[in-house]
Amino acid sequence: MGALGHVTPQTQRFDAPLPLRSGAQLPGYELVYETYGTLNAARSNAVLVCHALNASHHVAGTYAGQDKSEGWWDNLVGPGKPLDTDKFFVIGINNLGSCFGSTGPMHMHPATGRPWGADFPVVTVEDWVDAQARLLDVLGIDRLAAVLGGSLGGMQALSWTLRHGQRVGECVAVATAPNLSAQNIAFNEVARRAIITDPDFHGGHFYAHGVVPQRGLRVARMIGHITYLSDDSMEEKFGRQMRAAELGYSTQDIEFQIESYLRYQGDKFSTYFDANTYLLITRALDYFDPAAAFGGDLSAAFAAARGKRFTVVSFTTDWRFSPARSREIVKALVDNRIDVSYAEIAAPHGHDAFLLEDPRYHGVLRATFDRIARQVQR
Amino acid sequence: MGALGHVTPQTQRFDAPLPLRSGAQLPGYELVYETYGTLNAARSNAVLVCHALNASHHVAGTYAGQDKSEGWWDNLVGPGKPLDTDKFFVIGINNLGSCFGSTGPMHMHPATGRPWGADFPVVTVEDWVDAQARLLDVLGIDRLAAVLGGSLGGMQALSWTLRHGQRVGECVAVATAPNLSAQNIAFNEVARRAIITDPDFHGGHFYAHGVVPQRGLRVARMIGHITYLSDDSMEEKFGRQMRAAELGYSTQDIEFQIESYLRYQGDKFSTYFDANTYLLITRALDYFDPAAAFGGDLSAAFAAARGKRFTVVSFTTDWRFSPARSREIVKALVDNRIDVSYAEIAAPHGHDAFLLEDPRYHGVLRATFDRIARQVQR
Repeated sequence: MGALGHVTPQTQRFDAPLPLRSGAQLPGYELVYETYGTLNAARSNAVLVCHALNASHHVAGTYAGQDKSEGWWDNLVGPGKPLDTDKFFVIGINNLGSCFGSTGPMHMHPATGRPWGADFPVVTVEDWVDAQARLLDVLGIDRLAAVLGGSLGGMQALSWTLRHGQRVGECVAVATAPNLSAQNIAFNEVARRAIITDPDFHGGHFYAHGVVPQRGLRVARMIGHITYLSDDSMEEKFGRQMRAAELGYSTQDIEFQIESYLRYQGDKFSTYFDANTYLLITRALDYFDPAAAFGGDLSAAFAAARGKRFTVVSFTTDWRFSPARSREIVKALVDNRIDVSYAEIAAPHGHDAFLLEDPRYHGVLRATFDRIARQVQR
Repeated sequence: MGALGHVTPQTQRFDAPLPLRSGAQLPGYELVYETYGTLNAARSNAVLVCHALNASHHVAGTYAGQDKSEGWWDNLVGPGKPLDTDKFFVIGINNLGSCFGSTGPMHMHPATGRPWGADFPVVTVEDWVDAQARLLDVLGIDRLAAVLGGSLGGMQALSWTLRHGQRVGECVAVATAPNLSAQNIAFNEVARRAIITDPDFHGGHFYAHGVVPQRGLRVARMIGHITYLSDDSMEEKFGRQMRAAELGYSTQDIEFQIESYLRYQGDKFSTYFDANTYLLITRALDYFDPAAAFGGDLSAAFAAARGKRFTVVSFTTDWRFSPARSREIVKALVDNRIDVSYAEIAAPHGHDAFLLEDPRYHGVLRATFDRIARQVQR
């Protein structure tokens, strides 16, 4: 496998407002994106990779002059890798509302000249997908060979087949769910409350105060991290390992390595992630529920996806989006006689497994994309 | 089953300092306790009930003039109930460091005349058990017919058999664990960070500022609540039920009923629970690990409990202290040829099941205490 080498993000401006699911409109906006590989003459080898909470358009490759700037799915996407950029033209798009480049709460509200902050319109998975479709228009791509995503990215991949099915050949949905459970929403809500009740949040307009609600972001990230890891992998990695040889008998100092790890993750996150973005993205997760418009009948919802082909992958120890949630998707597809391959990967790493390089998991995706590559019109 | 009727808490003062596991000493202190039923002539029918995080000495009965003041385990303890106060003399003791009466961070530090606050010494399960034993001395009870506890209370019940084994006939440990897992510690740590980083915490000396770190307490309680309920019971009780007929598309307002429930629980808790107590109690949970002194060998630890009899109960959907954790205890007991009954109750309610009135669960406890009652010397 060769390296993808240096990549460069690009920015596309859209002047037409984007109608949102909430009824609001987002006025002119920008999307930041990256592409890897070459679009073939038939413009038929494009694969869109959708990102999850803490990721961006920077899916693969590195930035010039920046060591360790590999994209978040660099182990999967590149020359000779499972999603092979020698065969596919791969696109990563930063979602609206993000803090990594596309228009979001940190950008200027055109009407006020101040940052959007908490006034940034609430965006949904469907809104993201519609915005992505507009970028494909600009790139001259009528149809995606496939759309791929993990976790929240998987929800976008599913949504593509329901909203723009004629523009998608296949959907690869990894470690995802047809909607959030009450427990999933509960964890999101605790994280949001931690942010919103941080006095430095200032109702979402903290930029003007020169502060950042870091306390809330830290707690939010710590909660998130617990749900990304499996109980087992946390036990194996940290267990009850102490930081020092003897207990210090302190409620405030670090005693156990797991505490040190979580604090480090929380501190790091709070220095670069935007609080308003965190709220928006967790809400997009909460709201995603394609079955809702069909009285909760997921099979009825997926009738719109007939004719596509699906690959669904879950991980045994993922308790955030458990295999049972993926099986709900598979059942709804089978109910519609839709062609679906399902792989339940025995992996110890919990939800985070979708980002890791498990040979069986990557084998499934390699086989899937090799098959798609053979079908792509040159 | 009759009602226990009105009960009255009592207070016992101790002037001798209590040596703590940390090496510190707690100077003179008070324990608040309640008793139900009558101590028999042989003083042989006493049962100690140990409490968990958000509970107290008020195990059963009601307070005069206070409707709905039932004790936290009133469904289990009373005349004709599984732990029958017509047969047993039941004792509930509020643990040191609590905010419900016994000496704790809200009380005056004798050396400074100000509240202890964050300077209250760190107490452990072992310290609590030692303090409880001193109260039994005062009550003239040499030996308990049984010690019973759920969750953190179960840890105290186990600890009794290891520290004061000669004073315990039987141990009934419900929904507990031989120590916290990395994930358990992680949840505690997030809750503690939420409290400690609340600007109103003031390093634990908020009393002097006339404020309470309510934001942190709210978040801590919300996290706790998620871990007390099973995924399934949360799904059944709340699912994706919305608060209004239509989504409001807001990151800050309540959209789903589960959010409303969690906020209510958090708000309520933050008005009555002490932040320093929360830190102390979660640390006592973190530290409990009887196997640690035996190189992690739990069977070696329980050699000290030979000759006792144990009843261990777990609940299938408890993911805080799963059945697997109870089975670790059972294995350690069996390794020592200690007599143990183990019941794994199929209950949907998660960790909270230990407080609920499940007929199979209560049946097990009733049978256990009926057997103990027959063995008690009159």
